Amino acid sequence: MVRNIVVETMKRSPFTETEVEIVERKGVGHPDSLADGIAESVSRALCREYIERFGRILHHNTDEVQIVAGESRPEFGGGEVIRPIYILVTGRATAYVGDEEIPVGTIALEAATEYLEETVRHLDTEKHVVIEPKIGHGSADLRDVFERGEEVPLANDTSFGVGYAPLTTTERLVYETERKINSPKLKKDLPEVGEDVKVMALREDNKIELTVAAAMVSQRIDDIDHYISVVEELRDRVADLAAEIASDHDVEVHVNTADDYERESVYLTVTGTSAEQGDDGSVGRGNRVNGLITPFRPMSMEAAAGKNPVNHVGKLYNVLAHQMAREIYEETSADEVYVRLLSQIGHPIDDPKAVDVHLVGDVSEEDERVARRVADELLENITELTERIVEGEIEVF
Amino acid sequence: MVRNIVVETMKRSPFTETEVEIVERKGVGHPDSLADGIAESVSRALCREYIERFGRILHHNTDEVQIVAGESRPEFGGGEVIRPIYILVTGRATAYVGDEEIPVGTIALEAATEYLEETVRHLDTEKHVVIEPKIGHGSADLRDVFERGEEVPLANDTSFGVGYAPLTTTERLVYETERKINSPKLKKDLPEVGEDVKVMALREDNKIELTVAAAMVSQRIDDIDHYISVVEELRDRVADLAAEIASDHDVEVHVNTADDYERESVYLTVTGTSAEQGDDGSVGRGNRVNGLITPFRPMSMEAAAGKNPVNHVGKLYNVLAHQMAREIYEETSADEVYVRLLSQIGHPIDDPKAVDVHLVGDVSEEDERVARRVADELLENITELTERIVEGEIEVF
Amino acid sequence: MVRNIVVETMKRSPFTETEVEIVERKGVGHPDSLADGIAESVSRALCREYIERFGRILHHNTDEVQIVAGESRPEFGGGEVIRPIYILVTGRATAYVGDEEIPVGTIALEAATEYLEETVRHLDTEKHVVIEPKIGHGSADLRDVFERGEEVPLANDTSFGVGYAPLTTTERLVYETERKINSPKLKKDLPEVGEDVKVMALREDNKIELTVAAAMVSQRIDDIDHYISVVEELRDRVADLAAEIASDHDVEVHVNTADDYERESVYLTVTGTSAEQGDDGSVGRGNRVNGLITPFRPMSMEAAAGKNPVNHVGKLYNVLAHQMAREIYEETSADEVYVRLLSQIGHPIDDPKAVDVHLVGDVSEEDERVARRVADELLENITELTERIVEGEIEVF
Amino acid sequence: MVRNIVVETMKRSPFTETEVEIVERKGVGHPDSLADGIAESVSRALCREYIERFGRILHHNTDEVQIVAGESRPEFGGGEVIRPIYILVTGRATAYVGDEEIPVGTIALEAATEYLEETVRHLDTEKHVVIEPKIGHGSADLRDVFERGEEVPLANDTSFGVGYAPLTTTERLVYETERKINSPKLKKDLPEVGEDVKVMALREDNKIELTVAAAMVSQRIDDIDHYISVVEELRDRVADLAAEIASDHDVEVHVNTADDYERESVYLTVTGTSAEQGDDGSVGRGNRVNGLITPFRPMSMEAAAGKNPVNHVGKLYNVLAHQMAREIYEETSADEVYVRLLSQIGHPIDDPKAVDVHLVGDVSEEDERVARRVADELLENITELTERIVEGEIEVF
Repeated sequence: MVRNIVVETMKRSPFTETEVEIVERKGVGHPDSLADGIAESVSRALCREYIERFGRILHHNTDEVQIVAGESRPEFGGGEVIRPIYILVTGRATAYVGDEEIPVGTIALEAATEYLEETVRHLDTEKHVVIEPKIGHGSADLRDVFERGEEVPLANDTSFGVGYAPLTTTERLVYETERKINSPKLKKDLPEVGEDVKVMALREDNKIELTVAAAMVSQRIDDIDHYISVVEELRDRVADLAAEIASDHDVEVHVNTADDYERESVYLTVTGTSAEQGDDGSVGRGNRVNGLITPFRPMSMEAAAGKNPVNHVGKLYNVLAHQMAREIYEETSADEVYVRLLSQIGHPIDDPKAVDVHLVGDVSEEDERVARRVADELLENITELTERIVEGEIEVF
Repeated sequence: MVRNIVVETMKRSPFTETEVEIVERKGVGHPDSLADGIAESVSRALCREYIERFGRILHHNTDEVQIVAGESRPEFGGGEVIRPIYILVTGRATAYVGDEEIPVGTIALEAATEYLEETVRHLDTEKHVVIEPKIGHGSADLRDVFERGEEVPLANDTSFGVGYAPLTTTERLVYETERKINSPKLKKDLPEVGEDVKVMALREDNKIELTVAAAMVSQRIDDIDHYISVVEELRDRVADLAAEIASDHDVEVHVNTADDYERESVYLTVTGTSAEQGDDGSVGRGNRVNGLITPFRPMSMEAAAGKNPVNHVGKLYNVLAHQMAREIYEETSADEVYVRLLSQIGHPIDDPKAVDVHLVGDVSEEDERVARRVADELLENITELTERIVEGEIEVF
Repeated sequence: MVRNIVVETMKRSPFTETEVEIVERKGVGHPDSLADGIAESVSRALCREYIERFGRILHHNTDEVQIVAGESRPEFGGGEVIRPIYILVTGRATAYVGDEEIPVGTIALEAATEYLEETVRHLDTEKHVVIEPKIGHGSADLRDVFERGEEVPLANDTSFGVGYAPLTTTERLVYETERKINSPKLKKDLPEVGEDVKVMALREDNKIELTVAAAMVSQRIDDIDHYISVVEELRDRVADLAAEIASDHDVEVHVNTADDYERESVYLTVTGTSAEQGDDGSVGRGNRVNGLITPFRPMSMEAAAGKNPVNHVGKLYNVLAHQMAREIYEETSADEVYVRLLSQIGHPIDDPKAVDVHLVGDVSEEDERVARRVADELLENITELTERIVEGEIEVF
Repeated sequence: MVRNIVVETMKRSPFTETEVEIVERKGVGHPDSLADGIAESVSRALCREYIERFGRILHHNTDEVQIVAGESRPEFGGGEVIRPIYILVTGRATAYVGDEEIPVGTIALEAATEYLEETVRHLDTEKHVVIEPKIGHGSADLRDVFERGEEVPLANDTSFGVGYAPLTTTERLVYETERKINSPKLKKDLPEVGEDVKVMALREDNKIELTVAAAMVSQRIDDIDHYISVVEELRDRVADLAAEIASDHDVEVHVNTADDYERESVYLTVTGTSAEQGDDGSVGRGNRVNGLITPFRPMSMEAAAGKNPVNHVGKLYNVLAHQMAREIYEETSADEVYVRLLSQIGHPIDDPKAVDVHLVGDVSEEDERVARRVADELLENITELTERIVEGEIEVF
């Protein structure tokens, strides 16, 4: 197959040299990320069920989850959830194949519950959360399911994906800060820190202001002094990471800046997520597939989480575009790589309408050839992405 | 206090001598009973919380629970719930006392979940059930809560309670049959039998037709032969009980009469309750406070389960009327006792507008005096009922 | 067909001569009655749709409706609903016949909305009410639907119906009082009176205490004086009716006895129904099929409203039993007639397992023959009941 | 006040000269846009209510609306909605001020209903839609509400806005195409065309592929020939517009490309929106505040619709950034203008942490001064934006 791959070299200065950069990451316990995570875990659970029953993934998209915040009364050394969080899990899934019915609602309920249990340590799904699946049911023809060959799936839509590499220092810093705060190691050392962490960085030239908002777990914290010591320890740890990742920048770290210690008005939660009080969440409103929100970089509005990983190009092409940019960046001397993939509804997903690769920097013709080859190979093997998504090896938010 | 207690002796023949009698009991796993049980367990959990926080039970009524059936595919040796059961827990409760907020929704969610786990062995609340509390919030004045003395509560409504004693043989048979089928002992011997059991008896003169509909648990039953053997064993056990309780009657026992063994169309469930497939449930549509439905006996339409046990006369007076009838029956030579209690809104609950005690049979004046004394004493101590209800010592459905 | 009809004459004194009688009727605007009315109107709408599409009524039972009260702030000359009433419409209905899908949810939504609009004048369904249908879907085999002959339907269950005639004076008084208060005429004269009316009577010997609780419509009432004048006018009108119906009794009429004029704490509502604030409602918790709650008379616990009118004996036999009692009473010299109908699951509904007719009073053998004939004829024509129910000619609550 | 406004001139070639451009607009009837529109109309209704009651807008954010698709059976000349669309309206709003309670739920329900009625002609809100408000309640201190002066509100968050001007030809074409298709004029001429219109353009150099997906209204279309003629007429009209707007481009117009006329598999709907069948919708997943999705231009992930227009900088700064870019573009000789506004939580919204204005093209120093002045003036008057948003004069999606 000859793919329509255009590789172009751009003379402009790389993005890292812009004066201002804003980067954000919503941590796994942020309500929007929880919505993403539930959506994706429901999709993955369905995939596994479909594969087990029919040997292939059937049509579904569970990319609509709405978290309605509860109400809580955190207090030092205790606190309680007053009104449970309500989570509506919607979307569509194949529920009927011939005479067989797939327990879509039950699978969704179980997957969502388990995801929450794994992700937010202090959330008790039995008393803090109501999960209601309202997933539309589709049906598939039995013969269609079993006789379809091994051909490449057809794109479900005319859509596009965008990706770039490498991450800037600021981007890496933001990403790694959240990952570190939500790492098992830090949770072990500082169990007081909840999973709802929002990290934002503003870089002006060489100066980075790194702001962390971290929900603290009230039952783990005795009093305001204890709270202050946790905030300080967390700030130190983030500063250490910054010194490592952004040694050539001047980084200022802020943690929970809205706190008012005098009035003991601080960022306390019972469960470690602000979904318990006031903050709703929804799929697709947080991180893009590379785990970041980067308003001055190309971004897709597509909500990847919960989309089916077989032929939903809005999901696959965004994941692939980032991967492609990363691999091309690694194999060439480009300073930056931008990738755009455009699908064509009804055409095989390994044959996009257009693949645009932009190399920034001092690039050779050989580099361009390499870029073309990498792009071609990744498209050739695009169906492997599906499997890796189902296995949970690829983050999509 | 001089109470308005009227004791009267009736010359008519006792109810046991009527030609026809119909009695029914919906077992604890029946959807209507599950609704009752959830409503009552939520009320009891609220009571305990109020007592712990404020030293007294605050206003609430959680007597509205709607169970929306799920969808399931039971099959021998397995089966699954396709769509979870949805349970709406509603009613009203005091959620605010001064600045303090009581976590009504969380308490309801937890109490309902625990009740289901205790009551239906094969129901997995994490994947088979969605419970949504929508309880209206009331508030109480702090001073009002703490300064109110120890006076007797005032009746919340103009309402009445009815009770009678003793149970007829048919009534006892129906009640005990369900109790036996849902006893730990039988569940140990015959784990295949679910908790959704409906027992109905039609007595014509001396002949009782006792019909049991018992949901069987599909994963516990290998095949149709196994199923048949369980049904037969269950029928034998019920027959044994009947021989014990109704030795002077000619009892015919039927179990799962709608089964069709040829077509293997039998009463199989995944969870042991028909709420998993097609049968909704609602508070107040099943058993009366004596655990029975007895259309030819006086009955209150009042749904007792979930009503507050402090001043809801619709609950208290029905419980008390049965208790009063039982005690009077035991202490007198009456063949039958009927009790009617009529409240007066706004008056102390220990001072009903009217207490009518009807003694049937050959009764002495002393008996009438005893009846009056028993009635008086029970009313005098009516507030003890509240405590016993909170402790779960009194069945209300 | 020879039906198992037993007619028996009882020597006992008629019910009207008992010392105490309690009777209640929940008016059409009472939350429990609204639930009943919605359930029944949804069932009737489905019946009409099925008949139009398939020439016959398909299986359904929409006898589960849960009304969750809203929150309101009534005030003289205005007021508003703060939180809308939530109404869950559940049950089951045939949604698929062959490839055709019946819009069950849409029909339910429309029928419920229209019923509310017709029934509660000041309820604005667009802003005061949320109606959510969650009706389980069943399917029917196409051939089965069209090839089934004209045979009599088979009873869906082993169930029973009870009925009696005539109504006592107290019963008639209670029934007619509500009917009058909710009549177009009174609503024209006294538009201030809402539809949520509860009428309760306590008769002790010759004395009737008739208590009316009537929700008043706040926007129609200027101030406390206006309110008082409406209450007085309403009391006068009820007293006039009582003088007509119960001229031989000593009737005391009370209206809104819980009012406290001093503190202006009166029974005001924005919409005319207490469902707007604090009072939930549920099917089957209010009036029996004769429109009354009569705890000392035989009653069925069966919720008739919303049940399918084709073969649901819990509905049909209760309606028929009352009709049978009335006709027999009219055609014989009996003082009172009691009817009990017992179905047999799987048998034609015109052939009950047992028909017990009890005649009270001085009755001839000819009367007994007449009773048997009337019973037989009504059973012969039982399928006509279905049609009349669908047409809305028969009240079921 | 001296604001931190940085104006910079960039030497790069304008965006219009890039090789590839992708632009999308989801029309007002698209499920994501309906969610946006409902969220915004609820916020505006709350604003009006707050202003009427308290003279100022109180805190709220109703930027979370989840539309769960229904199920429908469109057919030529008719069709029907099988299962209603379910719409969850969530977020938070001030419901209590002192003793006064604001009917948040009722306002939301009414606003959402009216919005749908105005926006989707063939949607019958009474039978096709269930709207459930679940808005969290906040409270405000009475004194706080009335004594607060006229000072400028403080930013609710550290957030940013991005904007640019002018629109490219492709962007204008996409925007105007949808506006034309949903104009009263076209709806009059071609009432068959529904409101759910998705317009997408791919420009490669001088060639634009303009793809329109337009839901057709089944009851308005007799048969396949009628359908085809509507599609052709629509295509002609769009082509006319393209000839006007993009005369210097080679535009190819496609309408409903997924149609298969042979199999009569075409884009039919009963109501004119795909929310009736299979397509869920959610706030913030569609158009940005300039009405477009432009993945290769700077975009904010912020969902503006439903956010409070007083101090939610995620909403205000995005709207303002576009406005600023437009005005600067008009008043200078820049080829393109990019604006970035960065807020600082807790600081007055008229004093952002940073204002970056990038001018592209051959720009004079005077132009830079003008840019700075325009930016300063718009910030000076930022509170006027609030009023205009409440009046509905500013589109936010």
